[in-house]
Amino acid sequence: MKQSLLFVPTLKDAPSDAEVKSHKLMTRAGLIKQVAAGIYSYLPLGYRVIKKIEKIIREELDKIGASELLLPALQPRDLWDESGRWDKYGPELMRLKDRKDRDFCLGPTHEEVITQVVRDYLNSYKKLPLALYQIQTKFRDEMRPRFGLMRGREFIMKDAYTFTETEADLDTWYQKFSDAYTAIFKRCGLKTRIVSSDVGQIGGDEADEFMVMSEVGEDLITYCTDCDYAANQDHSKLNDGDDCPVCGGTITTAQGIEVGNIFKLGTKYSESMNAKVINEDGQHIPVIMGCYGIGISRTLMASVEQHATDKGLLWPDEITPFHIHILPINVNNETHMTLANTLYTSLKEKGIEVLIDDRKERAGSKFKDSDLMGIPYRIVVGKDAKNGQVEFTNRYESETSLKTIEDILDFF
Amino acid sequence: MKQSLLFVPTLKDAPSDAEVKSHKLMTRAGLIKQVAAGIYSYLPLGYRVIKKIEKIIREELDKIGASELLLPALQPRDLWDESGRWDKYGPELMRLKDRKDRDFCLGPTHEEVITQVVRDYLNSYKKLPLALYQIQTKFRDEMRPRFGLMRGREFIMKDAYTFTETEADLDTWYQKFSDAYTAIFKRCGLKTRIVSSDVGQIGGDEADEFMVMSEVGEDLITYCTDCDYAANQDHSKLNDGDDCPVCGGTITTAQGIEVGNIFKLGTKYSESMNAKVINEDGQHIPVIMGCYGIGISRTLMASVEQHATDKGLLWPDEITPFHIHILPINVNNETHMTLANTLYTSLKEKGIEVLIDDRKERAGSKFKDSDLMGIPYRIVVGKDAKNGQVEFTNRYESETSLKTIEDILDFF
Repeated sequence: MKQSLLFVPTLKDAPSDAEVKSHKLMTRAGLIKQVAAGIYSYLPLGYRVIKKIEKIIREELDKIGASELLLPALQPRDLWDESGRWDKYGPELMRLKDRKDRDFCLGPTHEEVITQVVRDYLNSYKKLPLALYQIQTKFRDEMRPRFGLMRGREFIMKDAYTFTETEADLDTWYQKFSDAYTAIFKRCGLKTRIVSSDVGQIGGDEADEFMVMSEVGEDLITYCTDCDYAANQDHSKLNDGDDCPVCGGTITTAQGIEVGNIFKLGTKYSESMNAKVINEDGQHIPVIMGCYGIGISRTLMASVEQHATDKGLLWPDEITPFHIHILPINVNNETHMTLANTLYTSLKEKGIEVLIDDRKERAGSKFKDSDLMGIPYRIVVGKDAKNGQVEFTNRYESETSLKTIEDILDFF
Repeated sequence: MKQSLLFVPTLKDAPSDAEVKSHKLMTRAGLIKQVAAGIYSYLPLGYRVIKKIEKIIREELDKIGASELLLPALQPRDLWDESGRWDKYGPELMRLKDRKDRDFCLGPTHEEVITQVVRDYLNSYKKLPLALYQIQTKFRDEMRPRFGLMRGREFIMKDAYTFTETEADLDTWYQKFSDAYTAIFKRCGLKTRIVSSDVGQIGGDEADEFMVMSEVGEDLITYCTDCDYAANQDHSKLNDGDDCPVCGGTITTAQGIEVGNIFKLGTKYSESMNAKVINEDGQHIPVIMGCYGIGISRTLMASVEQHATDKGLLWPDEITPFHIHILPINVNNETHMTLANTLYTSLKEKGIEVLIDDRKERAGSKFKDSDLMGIPYRIVVGKDAKNGQVEFTNRYESETSLKTIEDILDFF
C-alpha cells in the first residue's frame, strides 16, 4: 500500500491527558484519535491491527466448533426486565428512549439477547450443545474513562455463549474456550496468566480472567513465578514473598491488564428467561450457559504496552499492520524510486503486506514516522541504490545490513 | 462445517408481520431474528452472507486506493452543533445523555466525525486527496420500520468520505466510487441502475442512487428499458410510456430498492467545521468533500428479493454462505456417512466451503431446510451410496444427476 493514501496522522507530542506508554504511542503513531472521553476512532493503521486480532480470534474459535453471528447493540428494556438486570445494572448501562418513548439500552454484554435468540429454537436436548460468538462494538459508561483504549466507553469485544444440557458439557466447553484463548493471546504476541475472579455483574458460578502482566494494569494479582497456572488457585489471602501452599513456589504480586474472561453462568439467565429443553427423561430443564469475552481493543493496547519502547511501536509478527516498510529517501530520484517500486511489486506478489512511503517528505521525518509505526522489517532505498543495494533492518534483532533485491526476496 | 453446530433455526411459517418475500424467507431460513421493531440479530447463515458482501466491498474499495478505518457510533453533540445538524436532524436521530448529562447521538452517518478526524492533519494541499471508508453499524429511528432489513433502525453500512483540493478531483473520485459500486453490486449478483437523486439530510450539490428494480422497492423511478444509465438523466417529469428526450427509448416507471448512494458534498461540512488546507497560492481554502454509502444489510435483502423463489433462497456464487450442501439421508447408516464424510473432507481440502447436514433429522425435514437455505449445489448421499454414487443437484440449472466422487471432484 502507498503511504500517501493510508492516512497516518503521526504527532510530535502525545496529548496531555495520555498517562501510559501505549496511549501516548498509539496517538502519536496515528493509530487512534479521541472523539470524546473514552470514545475513539480507529485510524487505518490501528484498524489493520484490530482486523488481524479479529482474524486470529475467528480462526481459533472456528476450530473449536463455535459459530459466528451478530447481535444488535440496541436492546429493548423488556429483555433486561426478564433477567432482572434493568434495575440492578448501575449507571454504566447507557440507556435511551426511542421516538415512541420506549426504553432501550446499548449492550455492554449480550446474555439477554442471545438467550432470546436461542430459546424458541431449543426444544430438545438433541439441539445441544450450541456455541455462538460475535465480534461487536460494546458500550459502558465508565465513571473515569482512562488509559486510551484500556478503559473506554465504546469498545470492541468478542463475546461468546455456550448452551449445554449438563454441567459436564459446560466444563468441556469452558476448557475448550480457555485453551482457545491461550492460543489466541499467544498468536497476538501476549504472555497471559489465568486468574480466578469474581463473577461481578455478569453473574454465575465461577469465572477466570486472562491477564497480561503490566505495570499499568488495573488489577492486583498474586501468582508464583515458576508456575504459569498457579494463579488459578486461590491466592487472594497471600502476600508478596509468601510460600504458595499448592506448589511451594514464591508468591509474587503484580499488576495485570484483563484481556479476556470466561464465566460459568449456570442457569441464571435460562431460568429467569425461560430457556428450557426436554431431556432424555422427558423433563423440562433450564439449559446451562457459559459466556466468554475478549477485549479486542484492549488486547491491541496490551500488546503495545508489552512490545513498544518509548521511541516507538514494534508489532508481533501475526498482528503487524504491514510486514515491510519501504522508505525511498528521495521520491524525485529515479534510481531510488525504480528500485523501491521493483521491491514493492515483487514482495507484494509473494503475498507479503508492504507499505511504501511515497510521500514527498524529508528523510528525517520519514525515519521518525517509521520508528513510531513499528513495522518489523524496514528497507531504506538511498545512496546505495545505484549499486542495486538497500539498507535492510530487522527490528526484532535491531540489525541493519546492506542487501540486494535477491537477498531480500530470498529472506522472505 | 457441520450443520449440527451452525445454529440455523428454520421455521415452518413466516412471522405474521412479514409482508415481502425476502423478509419471510430470511426469517424462515434462519438468517435473521427480530429483537425489536426494526432491530435484528444476524444468525450464522445470514451473517456469513454479510461477511461475503463486506469482503467484496473491501476488495473493490482497496483497488481504488481508499483506506479503511472505524469511527465510533457514539457521537458528542458538540460536533453536530458545529455542522448545525443537531437542531436540523429530526426524530430519526437517536439521542441520549451520558452519566454526566452530556448529549450524544448514535450515528446515522459520519460526516461530522470524519471531518473532526482529518481536520487537524490537513494543513497543506499536499496531503490531499484522502479517501477513507468504514463498515459499521448505524442507527436511525424510523417512524415505521418495515420489510425486515429494508427499513431498519439498526443496520450495517459502508460509508466512505473523500477530501480533495479541487472540484475536478472530486469528480474523479466520484466516478471511481461509482465504478467500484457497479462492480460491487454485480459481484453480489445484483443488477443496479443509477438514478440522480435529492441530497436530503446529508446535504451537498449533487447525488446519485444505486437502485435494484423490485416490486417491493420504496422509490418510484423512471428509466428507459434499453439504456442502463438513462435513469441518470432527469426523467422526473416524464411518465410511463413517454419517449425519452435523451435517448428516444420508452420511459418505464418502476419501484426500486436503494442499495447505494453517492454525494458531492462540496464544502458544506468543511466550511462549518473549519477543515481547510493551504493551496499552492498560499490561500486557506475549505477542502471539497464527497460521501458514498452502501446499505450492506439492505444489499443482502435485495439479493434475496432478486434471486429467491417462494420455495426458498438461491444464493449468487460470490455471496453464498456455502458452496455445497451435503445431505446424508441417514446418519446411522455407515455406508452413507463414510461416503458423505469422504466427500466433505475432499471438497474442503480443495478450499470449497461445504456444509454437511449431520443432524439426526428425517430426510424430508433435511430436504425442506436445504430448499429454504438455498446453497447452490446439493449432494444427497442415500441409496446409491453402496455403488459409490450420489445425487448431485445444480440448483442454478435445476438439474439433478447421479455422480461418483470423482465426477464431483472434477466438476469443482
